[in-house]
Amino acid sequence: MKVLHVNLDNSRDYPIYIGSGLLGQADLLARHIRSKQVAIVSNETIAPLYLAKVQAALPDHHVETVILPDGEQYKSLQYLEKIFDQLLTKKFSRNATLIALGGGVIGDMGGFAAACYQRGIAFIQIPTTLLAQVDSSVGGKTGVNHPLGKNMIGAFYQPQCVIADADVLDTLDDRQLSAGLAEVIKYGLIRDPEFLQWLEANMPKLLARDKEALAYAIERSCANKAEVVGEDEFESGVRATLNLGHTFGHAIETGSGYGHYLHGEAVAIGTCFAADLSRRLGWLNDADVARVIALFKTANLPITPPATMTTAQYVDLMAVDKKNVDGKIRVILLQALGKASLPVNVDLAQLQATLNTYAG
Amino acid sequence: MKVLHVNLDNSRDYPIYIGSGLLGQADLLARHIRSKQVAIVSNETIAPLYLAKVQAALPDHHVETVILPDGEQYKSLQYLEKIFDQLLTKKFSRNATLIALGGGVIGDMGGFAAACYQRGIAFIQIPTTLLAQVDSSVGGKTGVNHPLGKNMIGAFYQPQCVIADADVLDTLDDRQLSAGLAEVIKYGLIRDPEFLQWLEANMPKLLARDKEALAYAIERSCANKAEVVGEDEFESGVRATLNLGHTFGHAIETGSGYGHYLHGEAVAIGTCFAADLSRRLGWLNDADVARVIALFKTANLPITPPATMTTAQYVDLMAVDKKNVDGKIRVILLQALGKASLPVNVDLAQLQATLNTYAG
Repeated sequence: MKVLHVNLDNSRDYPIYIGSGLLGQADLLARHIRSKQVAIVSNETIAPLYLAKVQAALPDHHVETVILPDGEQYKSLQYLEKIFDQLLTKKFSRNATLIALGGGVIGDMGGFAAACYQRGIAFIQIPTTLLAQVDSSVGGKTGVNHPLGKNMIGAFYQPQCVIADADVLDTLDDRQLSAGLAEVIKYGLIRDPEFLQWLEANMPKLLARDKEALAYAIERSCANKAEVVGEDEFESGVRATLNLGHTFGHAIETGSGYGHYLHGEAVAIGTCFAADLSRRLGWLNDADVARVIALFKTANLPITPPATMTTAQYVDLMAVDKKNVDGKIRVILLQALGKASLPVNVDLAQLQATLNTYAG
Repeated sequence: MKVLHVNLDNSRDYPIYIGSGLLGQADLLARHIRSKQVAIVSNETIAPLYLAKVQAALPDHHVETVILPDGEQYKSLQYLEKIFDQLLTKKFSRNATLIALGGGVIGDMGGFAAACYQRGIAFIQIPTTLLAQVDSSVGGKTGVNHPLGKNMIGAFYQPQCVIADADVLDTLDDRQLSAGLAEVIKYGLIRDPEFLQWLEANMPKLLARDKEALAYAIERSCANKAEVVGEDEFESGVRATLNLGHTFGHAIETGSGYGHYLHGEAVAIGTCFAADLSRRLGWLNDADVARVIALFKTANLPITPPATMTTAQYVDLMAVDKKNVDGKIRVILLQALGKASLPVNVDLAQLQATLNTYAG
């Protein structure tokens, strides 16, 4: 087992445990739980697979479970309220602990519920997808979607610990595995050119679920993210670079209806947009863009946007992105492969040209 | 104008401006606003009285208004969502500023909306009731109610500034004025015996809305609260003493249906409960309890609980209070007049006796 520490201001920090067979280890959980009251939030896909194992590790606790339907379309205030309903019905107090057992949706909702319930209870993340292990479990971003924009309602809230067990990836379907690889590739693109090369060489191993390769990719991704978050917890600067491809990706997710694209798929398409816009600014050359596209293709990820979305729709949806200032659309681009830009204002004519390139 | 500073950890602090004619001062607002986008959240009672004045102080901004119905029964996730709807429809970004113009309900909801919108935007409080000026505008507690408990969903979120204009109390009805005095009296009871004596001597002036007396009461109340919050922002210790009378009070508010009692009225009744329980522990004598009851009576506040509520209902409702640990009911009591206890576990037999005293 590897232990990564995410260091934050204010002498707060938390460990990420990475390894195999971690789910059954009672002591890992127990050392981060504050009282007998424990709520496990999970979904209908994950609960049948792993809930019993986590419950078995908590024999002396009063454990309640909240099982939500599976999918991004349920990441809403309405389903968040179901968590509050159950915690209050069971009279859970402020020293209770909430465990989020699932992918990014469950992590984001469980974390936000923990942030808001009685103004904050303890929170433990057990991510069960590659995407959640390498991305949403690190950095304290929690929240739910709004019909007008993804993750528009939320909080910065840090967990007590994250338990990333590589074994749970055995039950992940191929499409979800690829979606997670989109975020893994992102770390290479924004700040780790050496890791980018490693990914180009080892993508077949990762797709074949080679445990050693996966563990390395998880660890290196989390380490990259932990460094960025440690420098800029509240996203006033460098943290925004983690949003490479996400402004476009969120627009695609919202515009095509939550649940149609997986988050990682939309990010892959969005990153191809970002690469093309970077080329138009003279930061990348044609070969660089081709390399980005080829890597996503090798990872079995989509690279072309939904045929149904218009340019006006993109502009409209991106206009509510959190990076925007006074109504101007801002995105993260690539100054080189392995080096992200800070948020730059989008030139609408160039954006139009990029959208035409991909939509055509 | 007086300026009180609330000092918090992490080098964050914010000013409370107290005085007359503050609402029209454009510079007071402008120095705390981050960008052109400003949303004013208010209610149907307050907006016709003061909205135009605040808008007039923001001539160069893009000002949107969200007007909610007036009352504790609208302090819910459903009405909170109406604020998000409007901010997103108008494409408000993360550097927008939200101004809460109203009483405690608007302040709590506006603050929570600001805390959650895009994971946090700037927030300014303009409290328009005595209760909000002396209590809910200081300390960063924001949130909404749940059918099973008051303020059960929320966040600690600090404003950029608070503007407490004594002039707005001119339009406050007598019942609301008295409700605010319940919280003013609380500061005397929990930590300021000299202020308690001042209140006993000056209650007639306060009820007659003597401006000088009111300004003094607001300032001394805010100073007391700011000291407590500065010592313990996240309520791990002494801050809980501000909850004197509130555990019972919240049960009364929830049990009788939100909107039936004003918060301050329920707190007055709850504080009489707390005084009686303190007498049963030998901390107060009969004369002390009589003094507490007399002061609330002079302030035209209720001191007896609703006839419809049963003891079982109190116990059930108090079982979800945020001070509880592992299911035990804990309340703040008085060790003396002017000195609160830390949370103490409630002896159910003594609670029953107190409830019988007042219900009978």
